[in-house]
Amino acid sequence: MCRFVVYKGTSPVELSHLLTRPCHSIINQAFDSRLRLDRRRPMNGDGFGVGWYDSVYDEESYQPCIFTSITPAWNNVNLVRLAEKIKSPLVFGHVRATTAGSLSLDNCHPFVHGRLMFMHNGGIADFPLVKRKLQADLPDVAFNKVQGNTDSEWAFALFMSKLPDPSAKSFTTAMLRDAMFKTIASLNEYAEEAGITEPSLMNFCVTDGETVIATRYISSKTDEAASLWFSSGTTFSEFGGGGHYKMSKADKRENIIMVASEPLTFERADWMEIKTNNMVVVTPKMNLLQIPIVDKFYTPPSDPASLTRTTEFAREKGLLVPRNMEAMEGEELES
Amino acid sequence: MCRFVVYKGTSPVELSHLLTRPCHSIINQAFDSRLRLDRRRPMNGDGFGVGWYDSVYDEESYQPCIFTSITPAWNNVNLVRLAEKIKSPLVFGHVRATTAGSLSLDNCHPFVHGRLMFMHNGGIADFPLVKRKLQADLPDVAFNKVQGNTDSEWAFALFMSKLPDPSAKSFTTAMLRDAMFKTIASLNEYAEEAGITEPSLMNFCVTDGETVIATRYISSKTDEAASLWFSSGTTFSEFGGGGHYKMSKADKRENIIMVASEPLTFERADWMEIKTNNMVVVTPKMNLLQIPIVDKFYTPPSDPASLTRTTEFAREKGLLVPRNMEAMEGEELES
Amino acid sequence: MCRFVVYKGTSPVELSHLLTRPCHSIINQAFDSRLRLDRRRPMNGDGFGVGWYDSVYDEESYQPCIFTSITPAWNNVNLVRLAEKIKSPLVFGHVRATTAGSLSLDNCHPFVHGRLMFMHNGGIADFPLVKRKLQADLPDVAFNKVQGNTDSEWAFALFMSKLPDPSAKSFTTAMLRDAMFKTIASLNEYAEEAGITEPSLMNFCVTDGETVIATRYISSKTDEAASLWFSSGTTFSEFGGGGHYKMSKADKRENIIMVASEPLTFERADWMEIKTNNMVVVTPKMNLLQIPIVDKFYTPPSDPASLTRTTEFAREKGLLVPRNMEAMEGEELES
Amino acid sequence: MCRFVVYKGTSPVELSHLLTRPCHSIINQAFDSRLRLDRRRPMNGDGFGVGWYDSVYDEESYQPCIFTSITPAWNNVNLVRLAEKIKSPLVFGHVRATTAGSLSLDNCHPFVHGRLMFMHNGGIADFPLVKRKLQADLPDVAFNKVQGNTDSEWAFALFMSKLPDPSAKSFTTAMLRDAMFKTIASLNEYAEEAGITEPSLMNFCVTDGETVIATRYISSKTDEAASLWFSSGTTFSEFGGGGHYKMSKADKRENIIMVASEPLTFERADWMEIKTNNMVVVTPKMNLLQIPIVDKFYTPPSDPASLTRTTEFAREKGLLVPRNMEAMEGEELES
Repeated sequence: MCRFVVYKGTSPVELSHLLTRPCHSIINQAFDSRLRLDRRRPMNGDGFGVGWYDSVYDEESYQPCIFTSITPAWNNVNLVRLAEKIKSPLVFGHVRATTAGSLSLDNCHPFVHGRLMFMHNGGIADFPLVKRKLQADLPDVAFNKVQGNTDSEWAFALFMSKLPDPSAKSFTTAMLRDAMFKTIASLNEYAEEAGITEPSLMNFCVTDGETVIATRYISSKTDEAASLWFSSGTTFSEFGGGGHYKMSKADKRENIIMVASEPLTFERADWMEIKTNNMVVVTPKMNLLQIPIVDKFYTPPSDPASLTRTTEFAREKGLLVPRNMEAMEGEELES
Repeated sequence: MCRFVVYKGTSPVELSHLLTRPCHSIINQAFDSRLRLDRRRPMNGDGFGVGWYDSVYDEESYQPCIFTSITPAWNNVNLVRLAEKIKSPLVFGHVRATTAGSLSLDNCHPFVHGRLMFMHNGGIADFPLVKRKLQADLPDVAFNKVQGNTDSEWAFALFMSKLPDPSAKSFTTAMLRDAMFKTIASLNEYAEEAGITEPSLMNFCVTDGETVIATRYISSKTDEAASLWFSSGTTFSEFGGGGHYKMSKADKRENIIMVASEPLTFERADWMEIKTNNMVVVTPKMNLLQIPIVDKFYTPPSDPASLTRTTEFAREKGLLVPRNMEAMEGEELES
Repeated sequence: MCRFVVYKGTSPVELSHLLTRPCHSIINQAFDSRLRLDRRRPMNGDGFGVGWYDSVYDEESYQPCIFTSITPAWNNVNLVRLAEKIKSPLVFGHVRATTAGSLSLDNCHPFVHGRLMFMHNGGIADFPLVKRKLQADLPDVAFNKVQGNTDSEWAFALFMSKLPDPSAKSFTTAMLRDAMFKTIASLNEYAEEAGITEPSLMNFCVTDGETVIATRYISSKTDEAASLWFSSGTTFSEFGGGGHYKMSKADKRENIIMVASEPLTFERADWMEIKTNNMVVVTPKMNLLQIPIVDKFYTPPSDPASLTRTTEFAREKGLLVPRNMEAMEGEELES
Repeated sequence: MCRFVVYKGTSPVELSHLLTRPCHSIINQAFDSRLRLDRRRPMNGDGFGVGWYDSVYDEESYQPCIFTSITPAWNNVNLVRLAEKIKSPLVFGHVRATTAGSLSLDNCHPFVHGRLMFMHNGGIADFPLVKRKLQADLPDVAFNKVQGNTDSEWAFALFMSKLPDPSAKSFTTAMLRDAMFKTIASLNEYAEEAGITEPSLMNFCVTDGETVIATRYISSKTDEAASLWFSSGTTFSEFGGGGHYKMSKADKRENIIMVASEPLTFERADWMEIKTNNMVVVTPKMNLLQIPIVDKFYTPPSDPASLTRTTEFAREKGLLVPRNMEAMEGEELES
């Protein structure tokens, strides 16, 4: 049961507005029982990571900086202090529950290679059964990159292997998009070859510092994927105190696009759900596209079957978060 | 919102049966949202500690061993491994939320001096306003003992100062009991002098390896204290799998006495609530006494006012836990 | 046996050039046996801290950011990554050996209050004997600021108490200088009252983001203080690879002033020793002044006694580092 | 530049006598500059581990307990406290410098599987070039066991694959010995296939709780291996204070056998060097055998070439430690 958030803006955001100050940041959600449905490991206290790009673009070397920790995010004094000082136009944040892999900095998302940054919310079903095949297919650069022991990091290595050159100085949006399609397709092939029937939850997120690709995907025709939301607007700022933030739309321009495994504000209208088995692409010019991931697990919205995906699987994994948190809160306060 | 547990038995218990295996251990409760009522900091992910005495009594040097950590207890591999190996007849366990003091080994309970071991669940109201006066009253041995910056550790130093010799090789039950009375009385005096009106929550627990003293106390005539429960029996063991434990009473003998801030089994009848502003004394011979802490905040059970203490204050602090968890669970499963 | 370094420049420096890349940074010195003379605890592996101010001056809120860690600096991946990204015109770096105080983030230098940043290399002799008196003299703001249990942090609290308002938005150079004089004087008074005869090593360093004050001081008339050096120039940069840095003086301007407990380059001429019981003041305009700390432990340079201070005491503490490291290295390579 | 120590005794030893109290324990050596020859990473501050078996033998489940840490051993308060309490007849201790693999609990030795415990001092040359081949040869049980990313842990997985059943309840001495021979042979084959010419340093140590096997090995005909020593006697105890220990031989019986990468006492006669490319076997009955590892890198003692192995390679790696530390100390005190 991990959580992640992506921020991409035309102007840099101070990390504190994304991570430490909002009462609905992924870090503060980490101890909010309203949203916790996974009984087995419910609070994202198993480490976190944040990655960001410089405010100034440097074509030669535009690599993200990463800060990770194995102590819980919510009382990490270094994170609190750094978040007040660092500004960035493109940020990935991730909190982790150790569904797989031990508690170790090596296992904290986001993972980085050159310009690329990658994170995952979900899990590859029966990963030990596909690990050897996946590894065998990797070129050395990807194979040797992996430091930890999570399905997520190996998925990143697989993604790297689908790019013409994962160490390149620049990527096109199409390269990243196609590599993501191929990554999901390969993971599905491995699972099929291994006879795995449990669905894999593949909410991946990758960026090269310019394009952002995020997927909401499950290898199932009948289950909902882990939740994924986006919001866009002109400014993301606090109102009224108490860590309550909202997204404002001053005009037609979209200066900010956020993608997150949970809505990060109380405002219902701020957040749109990304549909199961769709990909969101944020282009360098801040255009946002939704692209269906069409394979045997896909159901077109026109097909009535698209409405009957069940939520039990993702919910059991603690990965399904509804939008209307106000309602949930109300319910709980009454109980 | 801390939690603690005390085990005292005529035979040693393997720490795993107390800490890591039961689904209702304080460690696993740490991520169980059913019992979490404190919205502000709800999961005891801010470090933990366990202290235990040797199975073999050594009159010359019977000092407890302590293992503490600032990473959450629930995925501490060292704790899991040690708990499978270590057996002890007298164990203190504590999980912590940083209501006061920073995340640091120095701030992890239990605290130790010579034979003594001490822990606290609750908080001294407006502690900075009384800290200087408390420190001024301490002898050097107690003043210099303090390594961290929590109200709890200073309360232990104050307790030390109320003993004839805190570094003694042995203590009588009366010495420990009287020192505890005096500690609470002094803390109340300091608060009064400083004009503090918010109640302090003083669930303290101390032992010398033979006697155990635990208090359920609040410096208020109208509020309930943080919860405190005890259980006694012949064996504490798993049944049916899944980490479900129960206390069995094979005969009249009480081989095991447990005191905990929350019931540690699902069995309703296993646990008795200790009344607000009472002290529990477990003697070296395993007798269990409840002694009222009679001062201006005390209400005798015969007084109808004793029934009207309100639970809001302790509940807000995340420190009031009802017994009937089965009911709670049922409610939540429905919602 | 700690080590510190101060950088103040008219332009920001990337922290990596100060901390992680130079083979003679305080971090890499931390495992360089040539310079290690303290047999008891010789390698600064007990945590570190770095503090820095923004490149952009903000009169309203010009507070430093701090990054601290209790794992050794030399393999802290977060430090390595952050140091490649962060630039600052005024940096404090500190590596620590636990001569006093436990291993805890609370005990890592530099310490911060408002605009102020403070660090210490040395030790207050018999500090437990003066701690209570020092604390009693502190106003609440300083008393309550202390989170850890080191002599150094209490010395900072004492320094705060010598300022008109330690929480002020700005300070004059004279205020900081005078507060430093008073801090040393008070510590000497406390020691005298307590009958302490062992000298205290008081290499302090403080800044408000504009002025920097550093002392090389020992409360002894016959011993040398812990070593302290400075260097100034136009650029501080790598040459020839291998982490070898040097200070260049392109012209008369001094764009960079560094103060450090050890010379940070191999170049003999780069570094000047600050004399025992002197203070160095770097003004906001980058003027560098040496001011003698004239008290009963002071010997004027004209007095022949000034040449007879012995080095055993500081050397035993691991705090005396000679300049000519090339020679030392040569000797060792032969042996 | 790691260090390890093995203790096997007919009676349990308190871990403190092995680890924390001796001034020459591997932990205290970790900051002793006399023995530090590796300029690149010289102090074993990158984590440690200790593993031990119960004093009471349990045929059904005789698995070791492990305590590991990524903070330096010398100021780990948990280690200091536990070492005073835990007694064991068979102990492995290991301090680590990150020549390969990141700072992570997963990378701390000793590694454990079932009854088996394994550690390594040295390094597999160009390990990334052989990693894939090694992994492909592993059965799933060994492949899936690996949690970290070190050559050492993969070497343990390879060792597991050479046993009839690595999860067995018991092993014969011959099984363990043969598996060790095969492990070294396979690593040499992998290196040869990959065209690796740099020698690998393979000081391995393995036990099942009864037999102990330790190798001093290098895949070179001209270089010395990393150092390895043993000592045996009746009692290992402190004398004269100051953490000075010695091995006493009260009679012919050998109640204690220690194997260590460095002599752990000042007493010259206490320690015997194990010859390069030899294996030491300590049987369950406490017999100690030296067995040559005869392959193409072996030179019989009768061959004059056996005297001409050069020490530069192991010395450069910080892995060659001479016996006569008194002499070294004397030299250094003069310089």
